[in-house]
Amino acid sequence: MSTSGNTRYIGRPLRRLGDDRLITGTAAFLDDIRVPGLLHLALVRSPLAHALIRDVDSATALALPGVVAVVTGRELASWVSPLSSPPELLSGRRLERYPLAVDRARFVGDPVAAVLAVDPVAAHEAAELVTVSYGELPAVVDAERAREATAPLVYPDWPDNVAFRWEVRQGDLEAMFRQADVTVSLRLVNQRIYAAFLEPRGALARPDRATGELTVWASTQAPHGLRSGLATAVGLPEHQIRVIVPEVGGAFGSKGGVYPEYVLVAALAWQLGRPVKWVETRSESLLGTVHARDQVQRVRAAFRRDGTLLGLDVQLLANLGAYNAATTALRTGLLAAGPYRVPALHVLVEGIMTNCAPLGSYRGAGRPEAAYLLERLMDAAAAELDLDPAEIRRRNLLRADEFPYRSPTGAQYDSGDYHRALDIALDRFGYVEARAAQQRARAEGRILGIGLACYCEFAGPGWESATVRVHPDGAVSVFSGITPSGQGHSTVLAQIVADVLGVDLERVRVRTGDTGAIQQGIGTFGSRSTAVGGSAAFLAAQDVLAKARQLAAHALEASPDDIELQNGAFQVRGAPDRRVTWQSVARLAHRFDGPPGGLEPGLEATRFFAPETRTVPSGVHIAMIEVDPETGEIEVLRYLAVDDCGNQVNPLLVEGQIHGAVAQGIGQALLEWVPYSESGQPLARSFLDYAVPRAAHVPDVETAHIETPSPLNPLGAKGVGEAGTTAAPPAIVNAVLDALRPLGVRHLDMPLIPERVWRAIREARSAPASA
Amino acid sequence: MSTSGNTRYIGRPLRRLGDDRLITGTAAFLDDIRVPGLLHLALVRSPLAHALIRDVDSATALALPGVVAVVTGRELASWVSPLSSPPELLSGRRLERYPLAVDRARFVGDPVAAVLAVDPVAAHEAAELVTVSYGELPAVVDAERAREATAPLVYPDWPDNVAFRWEVRQGDLEAMFRQADVTVSLRLVNQRIYAAFLEPRGALARPDRATGELTVWASTQAPHGLRSGLATAVGLPEHQIRVIVPEVGGAFGSKGGVYPEYVLVAALAWQLGRPVKWVETRSESLLGTVHARDQVQRVRAAFRRDGTLLGLDVQLLANLGAYNAATTALRTGLLAAGPYRVPALHVLVEGIMTNCAPLGSYRGAGRPEAAYLLERLMDAAAAELDLDPAEIRRRNLLRADEFPYRSPTGAQYDSGDYHRALDIALDRFGYVEARAAQQRARAEGRILGIGLACYCEFAGPGWESATVRVHPDGAVSVFSGITPSGQGHSTVLAQIVADVLGVDLERVRVRTGDTGAIQQGIGTFGSRSTAVGGSAAFLAAQDVLAKARQLAAHALEASPDDIELQNGAFQVRGAPDRRVTWQSVARLAHRFDGPPGGLEPGLEATRFFAPETRTVPSGVHIAMIEVDPETGEIEVLRYLAVDDCGNQVNPLLVEGQIHGAVAQGIGQALLEWVPYSESGQPLARSFLDYAVPRAAHVPDVETAHIETPSPLNPLGAKGVGEAGTTAAPPAIVNAVLDALRPLGVRHLDMPLIPERVWRAIREARSAPASA
Repeated sequence: MSTSGNTRYIGRPLRRLGDDRLITGTAAFLDDIRVPGLLHLALVRSPLAHALIRDVDSATALALPGVVAVVTGRELASWVSPLSSPPELLSGRRLERYPLAVDRARFVGDPVAAVLAVDPVAAHEAAELVTVSYGELPAVVDAERAREATAPLVYPDWPDNVAFRWEVRQGDLEAMFRQADVTVSLRLVNQRIYAAFLEPRGALARPDRATGELTVWASTQAPHGLRSGLATAVGLPEHQIRVIVPEVGGAFGSKGGVYPEYVLVAALAWQLGRPVKWVETRSESLLGTVHARDQVQRVRAAFRRDGTLLGLDVQLLANLGAYNAATTALRTGLLAAGPYRVPALHVLVEGIMTNCAPLGSYRGAGRPEAAYLLERLMDAAAAELDLDPAEIRRRNLLRADEFPYRSPTGAQYDSGDYHRALDIALDRFGYVEARAAQQRARAEGRILGIGLACYCEFAGPGWESATVRVHPDGAVSVFSGITPSGQGHSTVLAQIVADVLGVDLERVRVRTGDTGAIQQGIGTFGSRSTAVGGSAAFLAAQDVLAKARQLAAHALEASPDDIELQNGAFQVRGAPDRRVTWQSVARLAHRFDGPPGGLEPGLEATRFFAPETRTVPSGVHIAMIEVDPETGEIEVLRYLAVDDCGNQVNPLLVEGQIHGAVAQGIGQALLEWVPYSESGQPLARSFLDYAVPRAAHVPDVETAHIETPSPLNPLGAKGVGEAGTTAAPPAIVNAVLDALRPLGVRHLDMPLIPERVWRAIREARSAPASA
Repeated sequence: MSTSGNTRYIGRPLRRLGDDRLITGTAAFLDDIRVPGLLHLALVRSPLAHALIRDVDSATALALPGVVAVVTGRELASWVSPLSSPPELLSGRRLERYPLAVDRARFVGDPVAAVLAVDPVAAHEAAELVTVSYGELPAVVDAERAREATAPLVYPDWPDNVAFRWEVRQGDLEAMFRQADVTVSLRLVNQRIYAAFLEPRGALARPDRATGELTVWASTQAPHGLRSGLATAVGLPEHQIRVIVPEVGGAFGSKGGVYPEYVLVAALAWQLGRPVKWVETRSESLLGTVHARDQVQRVRAAFRRDGTLLGLDVQLLANLGAYNAATTALRTGLLAAGPYRVPALHVLVEGIMTNCAPLGSYRGAGRPEAAYLLERLMDAAAAELDLDPAEIRRRNLLRADEFPYRSPTGAQYDSGDYHRALDIALDRFGYVEARAAQQRARAEGRILGIGLACYCEFAGPGWESATVRVHPDGAVSVFSGITPSGQGHSTVLAQIVADVLGVDLERVRVRTGDTGAIQQGIGTFGSRSTAVGGSAAFLAAQDVLAKARQLAAHALEASPDDIELQNGAFQVRGAPDRRVTWQSVARLAHRFDGPPGGLEPGLEATRFFAPETRTVPSGVHIAMIEVDPETGEIEVLRYLAVDDCGNQVNPLLVEGQIHGAVAQGIGQALLEWVPYSESGQPLARSFLDYAVPRAAHVPDVETAHIETPSPLNPLGAKGVGEAGTTAAPPAIVNAVLDALRPLGVRHLDMPLIPERVWRAIREARSAPASA
């Protein structure tokens, strides 16, 4: 990366700018936004997983003081357009969702009616008083069951519940299985979980009939996409809607979509000409926020005796829930070969509609499911072949000289050095000593386990934009399409732009999350913000620098080629006394009569950066755990993460990303789950039921890094947000199974809650000795 | 101008977009902005024209309930920077203004202390209770007196009261005077007037300590310039200040500067961490808003008997008041030759500091003063030479083949056809018949007069910017640095962009007046908005169109050169069935993986347009008036305006500009004046004293146009906002003198209030018959 020789900030572990306002409590989140004349929205949600909506009686609710309106799905459908199906659907199948269910509710929590009142208490009370008469229908909540011919149909006009199917074949798989010394089969359940962000979802819409504009404040990670969705639903052109994103208290992919509640807020505000606000309760959040993962994975693999993987057959069923047909499982399919060489491969991915809450993205979004299946497979094969888990991985990992690499799934890998990462991980962890310590502990009756996870994943998809503007006083503004929810992107962008322009970091301010102020953008998800958003800012800053150089050349009567940027000023090469400051150049650019030399006025540039394809970060994580055989409780004793996210702009923020995601990965491995009863009742409806990791669950995470720069963008960055949630679940589960294997436990599904572990130990102990 | 062959909107007299919100009262002006926790600012203003400030006692004021703070100039000066002098000052003279006077008040109304209270009533009451102890100093309010060596000094460290001096000499003036058949001398007073906008000045500043940003809503015509000024004063970098301009109820040039009251609002809000608001009363407005014109003009001209102007000697004294050193009089100097051929010229302009309110810009800003002196001169010479006023002008007007033309003042004239405008004016007015009618009326004892004014003026200075953004749904946003105050610029910009892009006008929305949302810009003044701002929008739209063409070419698999824009869609030349809509192209530009062909994503462009020099609109106005000899009252019987503002984007808005400015020009000619007593008391302190024209004063204005396109910008536009205030005063005054000349009245200064006219008639009648 070229920053005119200035790298005062890039690569330095700087603290985040703007954290003072989070620490002092002065930051404004969605619920802090106040506008006069506000109406509060509360929802009547279906208590049944599948039911016809026969009648909605709102008379009692409307009689409550302060209640302004009760709106049903059928009423709303007459003037709000549904959000339509993704293009991946099997042909002939349509999937349209109205913000309130019309005639049929499809999951417990499906919004059926909306209540507006002058205060939130009245709104919620009134919602309780709305009487909906339902005709209950058979529900299906299990993807394998839903795929059966006899299953109830979530969409009665479909022939079955299959929303999409994706398949890839490479190499002669059956030949490989014939050659194989050992075959391993697994059925893995990657359970349904939920992004337990601190700040629940919420939106506030304020119509301005005078200007014809609708301003929507929303806790979202993709304001431009939300605007597009709202524009379609409400029937306004996009330039009449402005989406503003206040401080966001966590999003993790689950605040990326166009939620029906957000559409309701916008549509009702526009219709009534009054501002409308909705902020979810935590139990609503568990019902209405997209859930994630929920794959049943059937894996069959062929190995040679030396551990070489010959062929892999993967069949994935994704439980899509009722509406979204989320395509995250396609990403699992594309990553099915992971960091390994797979001579022959077959992958089949099917997305299945059920009467669960809609599936969506949550940190990793398809990547953790891929790493989990491969890493569980590697450990199972290692056990079968009596190889060390590190060794079997080493035999199959791609070599550094194989990049750029095309996976048999068709995915393109940009760069990496998987063997080096493994070597560093084993070395840093003291793997050999750890194994010895494990043996010693066993001898003392303690049940310790060590788990490895190698992974590679996708990051940085799509394009992103940036505007860099130098003001007449030399101060710099950066406008970015990325939309942080706590990651510290503003600091990263400021570092990049300050280095390119050679100005002090304090002179750069970053603005995000406002479609009224920012050029078209996409937003933050898929670990894209630095690699794509940062690169756009880098290019825009370079354009600005080139213009500044021309201006300086005029001011100094030299050729632009002879102008050097040194210590925040422009000077003529070899004549350091011929200097002009950034501020003078900025003033020149904005001179009333135009800059000298007929140059176009202004000192700003907008660039859009679209990488050729996604980057592929990678890494190796190792966990050591201890099982309490009396309670089944797991303690994570050590955790090491060695990651390659390409070049790092801010290692402190990289560290933060790893720590947070490992914590969430531990959450999936050990604690988190939204189970459904057979009739479709979600069984985790508050933080009493949905257990997230607490400080005691998370060890000090040790980290190390390698940096194989990505050739796909000028920063050489890859992305790091999802490494932890991808690697931690298999590392932890492998460690637990490593601990329990001597006891005869060969398989467990997440989450490894104490009861489950305790039962497995008890069952294994009571099983015949051959197990 | 090239708009891809689409001119559905440019040139059409469309009604203004957005007028519904003005008509229905839903538009938000500054005083409609409400934020919680607001403090209201009231000012203690000097009652003396010149005084030392000895002591400020705020104890009683502070004791009033609701009063939060009283701040003096000396306190403020410790943390607010003064706004400094313009570069035109004579060397060694500095002019710095603090928002509150420090130690010395220099005019009646000079802000001396600021009071903040929780409501405006308490603030104003408390301001009355602040006791300031003054030491009165001798004041000077007359520019001629102030220039004398014995005059009191407004700035005691200056050697005299002269702020700037500008002089130009061209040709051998004395030789011309020697050759002259006739010499004419005039001393003209162009009186001090005030821009009586409907909405007074006001500002509201809200600090956000969390983000470190200061948002300022202000009734202004130049938000970016205001931001620069506030940044300097408050000591913040520009990117920490956001200036938002609500609907503005008239500005007329007088809301362009950085007012001390606006600085106070920003500085006190930032210092106290609370929002602060100030809205002036009408009497404050008359004290604190800049005044305008106020020139004493000494003119001496040499003519040949046939009416040919041989030489011109102009000496201008501008009464600058106490602080600004406004350079509007330099514009008068540059226009001293006006539309006429002047073989020899001498112009001397001096700006004089006095103890009046600061001088500044008001519609015309230097141009009306130039037209007034030349047109009064032409009529005086015509009378002297016994030529028809039309004839003497015809003999001296520049010919169409002389453009581009360099005036002896150094000013460059772009294009024009002054003779044609005169011919059309005389023809449309029925000049010959009107003269005959005048004779008939005189025979009946009625006193009618006909007055002509030929003018040329400057328009479209400086650069301006625009961003044109096509959203993914094909809707178009235009962001412009121009900042309307009621002119209808949004309609004009939408017409231009809709035509360039070939889309429906309704698909284009224009946003102005928000430094947080808009690229760097300048603002609206000097009739620059269409010629400069419109041209920037035109160029940006052309860039967007070029990009769209490339995208369409990819979509249609054709060469960009073969793509035509037809009826809102792109098609392959000669193959009209190969079409792609704007919306599809917009979607393609924002496709998640980037557009085809490796094109950069996005469909937006920012352009800055800087014309080589100013445009020179011109025209001929003719008025017919009747004088009531018993009362001295003037009735404007007819008014014809023939103007050349280059190409017209919206003739209806051009019409509106002419009508409004003629009304204001009639106001200066007949009614408006801020006189000062010798001790420096302004004598017009409310609309009881300051008379603005009412409907009865303004006739139906007849209009006609010629269009000589300006070669300086792609629209060929020149600007029209100031034509009326420039031409109307001399046309009206010439008509009145034309009416009164047979009675022996040879000179009158504006405003021609009935008393003055009546006295002149009486004096002329009682004077010896030779007069």
